Amino acid sequence: MTDQRIALLLEYSGKNFHGSQLQEGVATVQQEIERAVAILARQPLRVHLSGRTDAGVHASGQVAHVDWPRAENSAELDLKDLDLKELAWRLNGIMRSDLAVVTMSFVRPDFHARFSARRREYVYRILNRPQRSALLKDTHLHVRQPLDLKAMSDAASRVLGRHDFSAFRSTNGEKSSPLCDVERCEILNLREGELEFWIAADHFVYNMVRIIVGTLIEVGLAKRDALSVSEALQKGDRNLAGPTAPPWGLTLSKVSYPDEFRLWELMNQEMR
Amino acid sequence: MTDQRIALLLEYSGKNFHGSQLQEGVATVQQEIERAVAILARQPLRVHLSGRTDAGVHASGQVAHVDWPRAENSAELDLKDLDLKELAWRLNGIMRSDLAVVTMSFVRPDFHARFSARRREYVYRILNRPQRSALLKDTHLHVRQPLDLKAMSDAASRVLGRHDFSAFRSTNGEKSSPLCDVERCEILNLREGELEFWIAADHFVYNMVRIIVGTLIEVGLAKRDALSVSEALQKGDRNLAGPTAPPWGLTLSKVSYPDEFRLWELMNQEMR
Repeated sequence: MTDQRIALLLEYSGKNFHGSQLQEGVATVQQEIERAVAILARQPLRVHLSGRTDAGVHASGQVAHVDWPRAENSAELDLKDLDLKELAWRLNGIMRSDLAVVTMSFVRPDFHARFSARRREYVYRILNRPQRSALLKDTHLHVRQPLDLKAMSDAASRVLGRHDFSAFRSTNGEKSSPLCDVERCEILNLREGELEFWIAADHFVYNMVRIIVGTLIEVGLAKRDALSVSEALQKGDRNLAGPTAPPWGLTLSKVSYPDEFRLWELMNQEMR
Repeated sequence: MTDQRIALLLEYSGKNFHGSQLQEGVATVQQEIERAVAILARQPLRVHLSGRTDAGVHASGQVAHVDWPRAENSAELDLKDLDLKELAWRLNGIMRSDLAVVTMSFVRPDFHARFSARRREYVYRILNRPQRSALLKDTHLHVRQPLDLKAMSDAASRVLGRHDFSAFRSTNGEKSSPLCDVERCEILNLREGELEFWIAADHFVYNMVRIIVGTLIEVGLAKRDALSVSEALQKGDRNLAGPTAPPWGLTLSKVSYPDEFRLWELMNQEMR
Protein backbone atom coordinates (compact mmCIF):
# COMPACT_ATOMS: atom_id res chain seq x y z
CA MET A 1 0.00 0.00 0.00
CA THR A 2 2.29 2.81 -1.18
CA ASP A 3 1.27 6.35 -1.86
CA GLN A 4 1.66 7.83 -5.29
CA ARG A 5 3.44 11.13 -5.70
CA ILE A 6 1.66 13.59 -7.98
CA ALA A 7 3.01 16.87 -9.33
CA LEU A 8 0.57 19.73 -9.97
CA LEU A 9 0.92 22.79 -12.18
CA LEU A 10 -0.99 25.66 -10.56
CA GLU A 11 -2.23 29.06 -11.68
CA TYR A 12 -3.48 31.74 -9.35
CA SER A 13 -4.23 35.40 -9.08
CA GLY A 14 -2.52 36.69 -5.96
CA LYS A 15 -4.96 39.56 -5.52
CA ASN A 16 -7.26 37.94 -2.98
CA PHE A 17 -4.84 35.49 -1.35
CA HIS A 18 -2.65 36.28 1.63
CA GLY A 19 0.29 34.71 -0.18
CA SER A 20 0.97 31.07 -0.92
CA GLN A 21 2.08 29.68 2.46
CA LEU A 22 -0.23 28.36 5.16
CA GLN A 23 -1.09 31.03 7.73
CA GLU A 24 -3.47 30.86 10.62
CA GLY A 25 -6.81 32.52 9.99
CA VAL A 26 -6.27 33.89 6.46
CA ALA A 27 -6.87 32.46 2.99
CA THR A 28 -3.71 31.25 1.27
CA VAL A 29 -3.01 29.22 -1.86
CA GLN A 30 -1.69 26.24 0.07
CA GLN A 31 -4.68 26.23 2.40
CA GLU A 32 -7.12 26.32 -0.52
CA ILE A 33 -5.46 23.49 -2.46
CA GLU A 34 -5.13 21.38 0.69
CA ARG A 35 -8.81 21.96 1.44
CA ALA A 36 -9.80 20.65 -2.01
CA VAL A 37 -7.37 17.72 -1.85
CA ALA A 38 -8.69 16.70 1.59
CA ILE A 39 -12.26 16.57 0.27
CA LEU A 40 -11.33 14.28 -2.62
CA ALA A 41 -8.82 12.14 -0.72
CA ARG A 42 -11.12 12.01 2.34
CA GLN A 43 -8.17 12.75 4.59
CA PRO A 44 -5.84 15.69 5.18
CA LEU A 45 -2.79 15.61 2.89
CA ARG A 46 0.16 17.96 2.85
CA VAL A 47 0.70 19.85 -0.42
CA HIS A 48 4.26 21.10 -1.01
CA LEU A 49 4.75 24.18 -3.19
CA SER A 50 7.98 24.92 -5.11
CA GLY A 51 8.39 28.07 -3.07
CA ARG A 52 6.47 30.87 -1.46
CA THR A 53 4.94 33.80 -3.26
CA ASP A 54 4.00 36.89 -1.27
CA ALA A 55 0.53 38.31 -0.85
CA GLY A 56 -0.56 39.84 -4.15
CA VAL A 57 1.94 37.95 -6.32
CA HIS A 58 0.44 35.83 -9.12
CA ALA A 59 1.54 32.51 -10.61
CA SER A 60 1.02 31.06 -14.07
CA GLY A 61 3.44 28.19 -13.44
CA GLN A 62 3.64 27.32 -9.75
CA VAL A 63 4.52 23.67 -9.14
CA ALA A 64 3.42 21.55 -6.18
CA HIS A 65 3.42 17.92 -5.18
CA VAL A 66 1.27 15.72 -2.99
CA ASP A 67 1.40 12.05 -1.96
CA TRP A 68 -1.95 10.52 -2.81
CA PRO A 69 -2.82 7.42 -0.81
CA ARG A 70 -4.09 4.32 -2.55
CA ALA A 71 -7.65 3.60 -1.52
CA GLU A 72 -8.23 1.04 1.18
CA ASN A 73 -11.90 0.75 0.46
CA SER A 74 -13.94 1.34 -2.62
CA ALA A 75 -15.61 4.49 -1.28
CA GLU A 76 -12.36 6.40 -1.64
CA LEU A 77 -10.88 7.84 -4.78
CA ASP A 78 -8.36 5.29 -5.96
CA LEU A 79 -5.98 6.63 -8.54
CA LYS A 80 -5.83 3.26 -10.24
CA ASP A 81 -9.40 3.90 -11.32
CA LEU A 82 -9.15 7.62 -11.87
CA ASP A 83 -7.22 9.45 -14.48
CA LEU A 84 -5.44 12.61 -13.44
CA LYS A 85 -7.36 14.76 -15.91
CA GLU A 86 -10.50 13.76 -14.04
CA LEU A 87 -8.87 14.45 -10.66
CA ALA A 88 -7.70 17.90 -11.81
CA TRP A 89 -11.21 18.58 -13.08
CA ARG A 90 -12.69 17.62 -9.71
CA LEU A 91 -10.19 19.79 -7.81
CA ASN A 92 -11.04 22.70 -10.11
CA GLY A 93 -14.69 22.15 -9.35
CA ILE A 94 -14.07 22.58 -5.63
CA MET A 95 -11.45 25.33 -5.48
CA ARG A 96 -11.94 29.09 -5.58
CA SER A 97 -12.06 30.41 -9.14
CA ASP A 98 -8.83 32.43 -8.68
CA LEU A 99 -6.84 29.21 -8.17
CA ALA A 100 -6.69 26.42 -10.78
CA VAL A 101 -4.89 23.17 -11.47
CA VAL A 102 -3.66 23.45 -15.07
CA THR A 103 -2.40 19.88 -15.30
CA MET A 104 -1.07 17.05 -13.11
CA SER A 105 1.19 14.03 -13.54
CA PHE A 106 2.52 11.10 -11.58
CA VAL A 107 6.18 11.66 -10.67
CA ARG A 108 9.00 9.64 -9.19
CA PRO A 109 8.91 9.42 -5.40
CA ASP A 110 12.20 11.30 -5.11
CA PHE A 111 10.75 14.34 -6.86
CA HIS A 112 10.18 17.28 -4.51
CA ALA A 113 8.46 20.44 -5.76
CA ARG A 114 10.72 22.63 -3.65
CA PHE A 115 13.99 20.77 -3.19
CA SER A 116 14.26 19.38 -6.74
CA ALA A 117 13.71 22.79 -8.37
CA ARG A 118 16.76 24.03 -10.30
CA ARG A 119 15.56 27.27 -11.86
CA ARG A 120 12.69 29.70 -11.40
CA GLU A 121 11.49 32.31 -13.85
CA TYR A 122 9.48 35.41 -13.03
CA VAL A 123 7.92 38.18 -15.09
CA TYR A 124 7.17 41.66 -13.75
CA ARG A 125 4.71 43.68 -15.84
CA ILE A 126 4.74 47.47 -16.08
CA LEU A 127 2.31 49.80 -17.84
CA ASN A 128 4.17 52.95 -18.82
CA ARG A 129 1.75 55.64 -19.98
CA PRO A 130 0.22 58.80 -18.55
CA GLN A 131 -3.19 57.33 -17.68
CA ARG A 132 -4.03 54.29 -15.56
CA SER A 133 -5.63 51.19 -17.08
CA ALA A 134 -8.96 49.55 -16.26
CA LEU A 135 -7.93 46.24 -17.81
CA LEU A 136 -4.34 45.82 -16.58
CA LYS A 137 -4.69 47.26 -13.07
CA ASP A 138 -4.37 43.91 -11.27
CA THR A 139 -1.40 42.57 -13.26
CA HIS A 140 0.74 45.62 -14.14
CA LEU A 141 2.46 48.33 -12.14
CA HIS A 142 1.43 51.70 -13.57
CA VAL A 143 4.30 54.16 -14.06
CA ARG A 144 3.11 57.54 -15.36
CA GLN A 145 6.43 59.16 -16.23
CA PRO A 146 8.23 57.98 -19.40
CA LEU A 147 10.80 55.27 -18.70
CA ASP A 148 14.17 55.18 -20.48
CA LEU A 149 14.16 51.58 -21.70
CA LYS A 150 17.69 51.70 -23.00
CA ALA A 151 19.06 52.69 -19.62
CA MET A 152 16.91 50.04 -17.92
CA SER A 153 18.13 47.33 -20.30
CA ASP A 154 21.72 48.37 -19.66
CA ALA A 155 21.11 48.13 -15.90
CA ALA A 156 19.30 44.79 -16.28
CA SER A 157 22.27 43.29 -18.13
CA ARG A 158 24.47 44.08 -15.09
CA VAL A 159 22.36 41.71 -12.99
CA LEU A 160 23.16 38.75 -15.28
CA GLY A 161 25.56 36.13 -13.99
CA ARG A 162 26.56 34.98 -10.50
CA HIS A 163 26.46 37.68 -7.81
CA ASP A 164 25.91 38.22 -4.12
CA PHE A 165 22.39 39.72 -3.97
CA SER A 166 22.56 40.95 -0.37
CA ALA A 167 21.74 44.47 -1.57
CA PHE A 168 18.57 43.15 -3.24
CA ARG A 169 17.19 41.21 -0.28
CA SER A 170 14.56 42.10 2.29
CA THR A 171 15.34 40.95 5.79
CA ASN A 172 12.81 38.36 6.92
CA GLY A 173 15.11 36.12 8.94
CA GLU A 174 15.75 34.00 5.84
CA LYS A 175 19.15 32.30 6.03
CA SER A 176 19.74 31.04 2.46
CA SER A 177 22.87 31.94 0.53
CA PRO A 178 22.82 35.39 -1.08
CA LEU A 179 24.63 33.97 -4.10
CA CYS A 180 22.34 33.62 -7.13
CA ASP A 181 23.11 32.68 -10.69
CA VAL A 182 20.96 34.89 -12.94
CA GLU A 183 20.55 33.29 -16.38
CA ARG A 184 18.09 35.73 -17.87
CA CYS A 185 17.43 39.37 -17.05
CA GLU A 186 15.85 41.48 -19.74
CA ILE A 187 13.14 44.00 -20.53
CA LEU A 188 10.69 43.40 -23.38
CA ASN A 189 8.67 46.20 -24.94
CA LEU A 190 5.53 44.31 -25.95
CA ARG A 191 3.20 47.04 -27.12
CA GLU A 192 2.96 50.79 -26.69
CA GLY A 193 3.67 51.22 -23.00
CA GLU A 194 3.42 47.55 -22.03
CA LEU A 195 6.73 46.36 -20.59
CA GLU A 196 7.76 42.98 -19.27
CA PHE A 197 10.80 42.40 -17.10
CA TRP A 198 11.89 38.74 -17.23
CA ILE A 199 14.32 37.19 -14.79
CA ALA A 200 15.41 33.57 -14.29
CA ALA A 201 17.86 32.22 -11.75
CA ASP A 202 18.79 29.06 -9.91
CA HIS A 203 17.72 30.67 -6.67
CA PHE A 204 16.19 33.95 -5.45
CA VAL A 205 16.59 35.73 -2.13
CA TYR A 206 13.58 37.32 -0.44
CA ASN A 207 11.94 40.12 -2.49
CA MET A 208 14.87 40.02 -4.94
CA VAL A 209 12.77 40.44 -8.10
CA ARG A 210 10.73 43.28 -6.68
CA ILE A 211 13.81 45.14 -5.40
CA ILE A 212 15.56 44.74 -8.76
CA VAL A 213 12.44 46.09 -10.50
CA GLY A 214 12.19 49.00 -8.05
CA THR A 215 15.84 49.80 -8.77
CA LEU A 216 15.46 49.50 -12.57
CA ILE A 217 12.47 51.86 -12.48
CA GLU A 218 14.65 54.44 -10.72
CA VAL A 219 17.18 53.95 -13.53
CA GLY A 220 14.39 54.39 -16.11
CA LEU A 221 13.33 57.64 -14.42
CA ALA A 222 16.98 58.86 -14.35
CA LYS A 223 16.95 58.97 -10.56
CA ARG A 224 20.07 56.77 -10.65
CA ASP A 225 22.36 55.42 -13.36
CA ALA A 226 22.94 51.83 -14.52
CA LEU A 227 26.38 51.83 -12.87
CA SER A 228 24.71 52.13 -9.46
CA VAL A 229 23.28 48.63 -9.93
CA SER A 230 26.78 47.17 -10.27
CA GLU A 231 27.85 49.17 -7.25
CA ALA A 232 24.97 47.88 -5.12
CA LEU A 233 25.81 44.30 -6.14
CA GLN A 234 29.47 44.77 -5.23
CA LYS A 235 28.91 46.45 -1.87
CA GLY A 236 25.98 44.27 -0.82
CA ASP A 237 24.29 47.17 0.94
CA ARG A 238 20.48 47.20 0.82
CA ASN A 239 20.55 51.00 1.11
CA LEU A 240 22.28 51.23 -2.27
CA ALA A 241 19.40 49.49 -4.12
CA GLY A 242 15.97 50.96 -4.88
CA PRO A 243 12.60 50.43 -3.23
CA THR A 244 10.66 47.15 -3.36
CA ALA A 245 8.20 47.33 -6.28
CA PRO A 246 4.59 46.39 -5.36
CA PRO A 247 3.53 42.74 -5.59
CA TRP A 248 0.73 42.89 -8.16
CA GLY A 249 3.08 43.32 -11.17
CA LEU A 250 4.86 40.05 -10.36
CA THR A 251 4.04 36.57 -11.70
CA LEU A 252 5.90 33.31 -11.06
CA SER A 253 6.06 32.03 -14.62
CA LYS A 254 7.97 28.76 -14.56
CA VAL A 255 9.81 26.35 -12.26
CA SER A 256 12.30 23.97 -13.87
CA TYR A 257 13.51 20.57 -12.69
CA PRO A 258 16.29 18.19 -13.75
CA ASP A 259 15.52 16.35 -16.99
CA GLU A 260 15.50 12.99 -15.21
CA PHE A 261 12.05 13.78 -13.77
CA ARG A 262 10.60 14.41 -17.28
CA LEU A 263 8.13 16.71 -15.58
CA TRP A 264 6.98 18.82 -18.55
CA GLU A 265 6.76 15.82 -20.82
CA LEU A 266 4.51 14.03 -18.30
CA MET A 267 2.47 17.14 -17.57
CA ASN A 268 1.88 17.83 -21.25
CA GLN A 269 0.63 14.30 -21.79
CA GLU A 270 -2.06 14.81 -19.17
CA MET A 271 -2.89 18.21 -20.66
CA ARG A 272 -4.25 16.68 -23.85
CA MET B 1 -19.15 81.25 -25.48
CA THR B 2 -18.99 78.01 -27.46
CA ASP B 3 -18.52 74.54 -26.07
CA GLN B 4 -15.53 72.48 -27.08
CA ARG B 5 -16.05 68.97 -28.32
CA ILE B 6 -13.72 66.42 -26.77
CA ALA B 7 -13.20 62.80 -27.86
CA LEU B 8 -12.31 60.22 -25.21
CA LEU B 9 -10.68 56.81 -25.60
CA LEU B 10 -12.06 54.53 -22.89
CA GLU B 11 -11.11 51.17 -21.42
CA TYR B 12 -13.34 49.10 -19.19
CA SER B 13 -13.85 45.65 -17.81
CA GLY B 14 -17.46 44.69 -18.44
CA LYS B 15 -17.58 42.28 -15.52
CA ASN B 16 -19.17 44.57 -12.98
CA PHE B 17 -21.06 46.94 -15.28
CA HIS B 18 -24.59 46.38 -16.51
CA GLY B 19 -23.45 47.23 -20.01
CA SER B 20 -22.49 50.59 -21.47
CA GLN B 21 -25.81 52.36 -21.92
CA LEU B 22 -27.62 54.40 -19.26
CA GLN B 23 -30.18 52.33 -17.38
CA GLU B 24 -32.26 53.27 -14.39
CA GLY B 25 -30.96 51.96 -11.08
CA VAL B 26 -27.92 49.97 -12.25
CA ALA B 27 -24.26 50.87 -12.78
CA THR B 28 -23.33 51.37 -16.43
CA VAL B 29 -20.27 52.74 -18.20
CA GLN B 30 -22.11 55.81 -19.49
CA GLN B 31 -23.50 56.60 -16.05
CA GLU B 32 -20.06 56.33 -14.44
CA ILE B 33 -18.31 58.55 -16.96
CA GLU B 34 -21.14 61.10 -16.85
CA ARG B 35 -20.93 61.13 -13.05
CA ALA B 36 -17.20 61.94 -13.19
CA VAL B 37 -17.64 64.53 -15.96
CA ALA B 38 -20.43 66.26 -14.02
CA ILE B 39 -18.19 66.62 -10.96
CA LEU B 40 -15.39 68.27 -12.94
CA ALA B 41 -17.61 70.36 -15.22
CA ARG B 42 -19.87 71.28 -12.29
CA GLN B 43 -22.90 70.56 -14.42
CA PRO B 44 -24.48 67.51 -16.01
CA LEU B 45 -23.13 66.81 -19.49
CA ARG B 46 -24.20 64.13 -21.94
CA VAL B 47 -21.45 61.68 -22.95
CA HIS B 48 -22.03 59.90 -26.29
CA LEU B 49 -20.47 56.46 -26.79
CA SER B 50 -19.61 54.99 -30.22
CA GLY B 51 -22.07 52.22 -29.57
CA ARG B 52 -23.45 49.98 -26.88
CA THR B 53 -21.68 47.02 -25.38
CA ASP B 54 -23.72 44.45 -23.47
CA ALA B 55 -23.35 43.56 -19.80
CA GLY B 56 -20.09 41.66 -19.34
CA VAL B 57 -18.47 42.83 -22.60
CA HIS B 58 -15.14 44.62 -22.20
CA ALA B 59 -13.59 47.49 -24.17
CA SER B 60 -9.97 48.40 -24.78
CA GLY B 61 -10.86 51.00 -27.42
CA GLN B 62 -14.32 52.44 -26.81
CA VAL B 63 -14.67 56.02 -28.13
CA ALA B 64 -16.93 58.71 -26.68
CA HIS B 65 -17.42 62.43 -27.05
CA VAL B 66 -18.64 65.23 -24.81
CA ASP B 67 -19.17 68.96 -25.30
CA TRP B 68 -17.26 70.72 -22.57
CA PRO B 69 -18.53 74.20 -21.75
CA ARG B 70 -16.14 77.09 -21.45
CA ALA B 71 -16.06 78.41 -17.92
CA GLU B 72 -18.16 81.47 -17.10
CA ASN B 73 -16.43 82.11 -13.83
CA SER B 74 -13.02 81.28 -12.57
CA ALA B 75 -14.22 78.66 -10.10
CA GLU B 76 -15.01 76.28 -12.95
CA LEU B 77 -12.59 74.17 -14.93
CA ASP B 78 -11.84 76.14 -18.05
CA LEU B 79 -10.20 74.11 -20.77
CA LYS B 80 -8.21 77.13 -21.86
CA ASP B 81 -6.27 76.74 -18.65
CA LEU B 82 -6.29 72.99 -18.42
CA ASP B 83 -4.57 70.51 -20.61
CA LEU B 84 -6.44 67.35 -21.53
CA LYS B 85 -3.87 65.07 -19.95
CA GLU B 86 -4.66 66.77 -16.65
CA LEU B 87 -8.41 66.46 -17.27
CA ALA B 88 -8.08 62.74 -18.10
CA TRP B 89 -6.01 62.30 -14.96
CA ARG B 90 -8.70 63.99 -12.85
CA LEU B 91 -11.46 61.87 -14.40
CA ASN B 92 -9.41 58.75 -13.69
CA GLY B 93 -9.06 59.88 -10.10
CA ILE B 94 -12.85 60.02 -9.69
CA MET B 95 -14.04 57.02 -11.70
CA ARG B 96 -14.28 53.39 -10.62
CA SER B 97 -11.04 51.51 -11.18
CA ASP B 98 -12.61 49.21 -13.81
CA LEU B 99 -13.22 52.19 -16.12
CA ALA B 100 -10.42 54.45 -17.39
CA VAL B 101 -9.84 57.28 -19.82
CA VAL B 102 -6.78 56.26 -21.83
CA THR B 103 -6.45 59.56 -23.70
CA MET B 104 -8.53 62.51 -24.90
CA SER B 105 -8.34 65.10 -27.64
CA PHE B 106 -10.19 68.13 -28.91
CA VAL B 107 -12.11 67.27 -32.08
CA ARG B 108 -14.02 69.16 -34.75
CA PRO B 109 -17.58 70.03 -33.73
CA ASP B 110 -19.00 67.81 -36.51
CA PHE B 111 -17.33 64.71 -35.04
CA HIS B 112 -19.79 62.29 -33.43
CA ALA B 113 -18.54 59.22 -31.58
CA ARG B 114 -21.46 57.13 -32.84
CA PHE B 115 -22.55 58.63 -36.16
CA SER B 116 -19.07 59.36 -37.54
CA ALA B 117 -17.79 55.82 -36.85
CA ARG B 118 -16.93 53.89 -40.04
CA ARG B 119 -15.53 50.62 -38.72
CA ARG B 120 -15.50 48.69 -35.46
CA GLU B 121 -13.16 45.88 -34.50
CA TYR B 122 -13.79 43.24 -31.85
CA VAL B 123 -11.75 40.40 -30.42
CA TYR B 124 -13.26 37.30 -28.80
CA ARG B 125 -10.86 35.29 -26.62
CA ILE B 126 -11.12 31.55 -26.09
CA LEU B 127 -9.10 29.29 -23.81
CA ASN B 128 -9.05 25.80 -25.30
CA ARG B 129 -7.63 23.30 -22.84
CA PRO B 130 -9.00 20.64 -20.49
CA GLN B 131 -8.73 22.66 -17.27
CA ARG B 132 -10.14 26.08 -16.46
CA SER B 133 -7.86 29.07 -15.83
CA ALA B 134 -7.54 31.22 -12.71
CA LEU B 135 -5.90 34.07 -14.63
CA LEU B 136 -7.98 34.24 -17.83
CA LYS B 137 -11.41 33.46 -16.40
CA ASP B 138 -12.80 36.99 -16.79
CA THR B 139 -11.55 37.59 -20.34
CA HIS B 140 -11.67 34.18 -22.09
CA LEU B 141 -14.38 31.64 -22.79
CA HIS B 142 -13.18 28.25 -21.59
CA VAL B 143 -13.78 25.40 -24.06
CA ARG B 144 -12.68 22.02 -22.67
CA GLN B 145 -12.91 19.87 -25.79
CA PRO B 146 -10.23 20.28 -28.48
CA LEU B 147 -11.24 22.72 -31.23
CA ASP B 148 -10.42 22.09 -34.88
CA LEU B 149 -8.80 25.41 -35.78
CA LYS B 150 -8.52 24.63 -39.45
CA ALA B 151 -12.26 24.03 -39.77
CA MET B 152 -12.97 27.17 -37.74
CA SER B 153 -10.68 29.28 -39.94
CA ASP B 154 -12.40 27.91 -43.03
CA ALA B 155 -15.79 28.84 -41.55
CA ALA B 156 -14.54 32.28 -40.49
CA SER B 157 -13.39 33.05 -44.03
CA ARG B 158 -16.98 32.51 -45.25
CA VAL B 159 -18.11 35.44 -43.12
CA LEU B 160 -15.77 37.86 -44.93
CA GLY B 161 -17.34 40.31 -47.35
CA ARG B 162 -20.76 41.91 -47.64
CA HIS B 163 -23.64 39.72 -46.39
CA ASP B 164 -27.10 39.88 -44.88
CA PHE B 165 -26.47 38.88 -41.24
CA SER B 166 -30.11 38.26 -40.29
CA ALA B 167 -29.19 34.71 -39.21
CA PHE B 168 -26.57 36.14 -36.83
CA ARG B 169 -28.77 38.69 -35.12
CA SER B 170 -30.63 38.58 -31.81
CA THR B 171 -34.03 40.21 -31.86
CA ASN B 172 -34.08 43.23 -29.60
CA GLY B 173 -36.35 45.45 -31.65
CA GLU B 174 -33.31 46.94 -33.40
CA LYS B 175 -34.19 48.19 -36.88
CA SER B 176 -30.80 48.75 -38.53
CA SER B 177 -29.91 47.16 -41.86
CA PRO B 178 -28.81 43.52 -41.65
CA LEU B 179 -26.21 44.21 -44.37
CA CYS B 180 -22.68 44.32 -42.98
CA ASP B 181 -19.37 44.57 -44.75
CA VAL B 182 -16.93 42.31 -42.89
CA GLU B 183 -13.33 43.35 -43.63
CA ARG B 184 -11.55 41.04 -41.23
CA CYS B 185 -12.61 37.70 -39.79
CA GLU B 186 -9.86 35.39 -38.59
CA ILE B 187 -8.69 33.15 -35.80
CA LEU B 188 -5.25 33.58 -34.25
CA ASN B 189 -3.56 30.84 -32.24
CA LEU B 190 -1.53 32.92 -29.80
CA ARG B 191 -0.13 30.37 -27.40
CA GLU B 192 -0.92 26.80 -26.44
CA GLY B 193 -4.70 26.89 -26.16
CA GLU B 194 -5.11 30.66 -26.29
CA LEU B 195 -7.21 31.64 -29.29
CA GLU B 196 -8.33 35.04 -30.51
CA PHE B 197 -11.14 35.58 -32.97
CA TRP B 198 -10.86 38.99 -34.65
CA ILE B 199 -13.64 40.60 -36.63
CA ALA B 200 -13.95 44.07 -38.15
CA ALA B 201 -16.89 45.50 -40.08
CA ASP B 202 -18.48 48.79 -41.05
CA HIS B 203 -21.49 47.87 -38.95
CA PHE B 204 -22.65 45.07 -36.64
CA VAL B 205 -26.16 43.82 -35.90
CA TYR B 206 -27.17 42.95 -32.33
CA ASN B 207 -25.10 40.07 -30.83
CA MET B 208 -23.56 39.38 -34.24
CA VAL B 209 -20.02 38.73 -32.97
CA ARG B 210 -21.18 36.44 -30.18
CA ILE B 211 -23.47 34.44 -32.48
CA ILE B 212 -20.69 34.05 -35.07
CA VAL B 213 -18.36 32.84 -32.29
CA GLY B 214 -21.00 30.43 -30.96
CA THR B 215 -21.39 29.07 -34.49
CA LEU B 216 -17.63 28.78 -35.10
CA ILE B 217 -17.20 26.87 -31.84
CA GLU B 218 -19.79 24.36 -33.07
CA VAL B 219 -17.73 24.04 -36.25
CA GLY B 220 -14.58 23.55 -34.14
CA LEU B 221 -16.31 20.78 -32.20
CA ALA B 222 -17.51 19.12 -35.44
CA LYS B 223 -21.15 19.68 -34.47
CA ARG B 224 -21.61 21.41 -37.83
CA ASP B 225 -19.49 21.99 -40.91
CA ALA B 226 -18.07 25.20 -42.35
CA LEU B 227 -20.56 25.08 -45.21
CA SER B 228 -23.42 25.54 -42.73
CA VAL B 229 -22.15 29.07 -42.07
CA SER B 230 -22.58 29.99 -45.73
CA GLU B 231 -26.01 28.41 -45.68
CA ALA B 232 -27.10 30.38 -42.61
CA LEU B 233 -25.90 33.60 -44.26
CA GLN B 234 -27.81 32.82 -47.45
CA LYS B 235 -31.08 31.80 -45.81
CA GLY B 236 -31.02 34.49 -43.11
CA ASP B 237 -32.61 32.16 -40.59
CA ARG B 238 -31.46 32.61 -36.96
CA ASN B 239 -32.23 28.93 -36.33
CA LEU B 240 -29.50 27.93 -38.78
CA ALA B 241 -26.77 29.68 -36.77
CA GLY B 242 -25.30 28.56 -33.46
CA PRO B 243 -25.89 29.79 -29.92
CA THR B 244 -24.82 33.21 -28.64
CA ALA B 245 -21.40 32.87 -26.98
CA PRO B 246 -21.19 34.39 -23.48
CA PRO B 247 -20.21 38.06 -23.13
CA TRP B 248 -17.02 37.85 -21.06
CA GLY B 249 -14.84 36.64 -23.98
CA LEU B 250 -15.67 39.75 -26.02
CA THR B 251 -13.73 43.02 -26.15
CA LEU B 252 -14.44 46.08 -28.31
CA SER B 253 -10.92 46.72 -29.56
CA LYS B 254 -11.09 49.68 -31.91
CA VAL B 255 -13.46 52.18 -33.49
CA SER B 256 -12.29 53.92 -36.68
CA TYR B 257 -13.32 57.29 -38.11
CA PRO B 258 -12.76 59.09 -41.40
CA ASP B 259 -9.22 60.45 -41.80
CA GLU B 260 -10.47 64.03 -41.89
CA PHE B 261 -11.02 63.94 -38.09
CA ARG B 262 -7.36 62.91 -37.48
CA LEU B 263 -8.61 61.27 -34.31
CA TRP B 264 -5.74 58.85 -33.61
CA GLU B 265 -3.12 61.44 -34.47
CA LEU B 266 -4.68 63.89 -32.00
CA MET B 267 -5.22 61.24 -29.33
CA ASN B 268 -1.64 60.01 -29.60
CA GLN B 269 -0.33 63.53 -29.12
CA GLU B 270 -2.16 63.81 -25.80
CA MET B 271 -0.96 60.35 -24.80
CA ARG B 272 2.66 61.48 -24.56
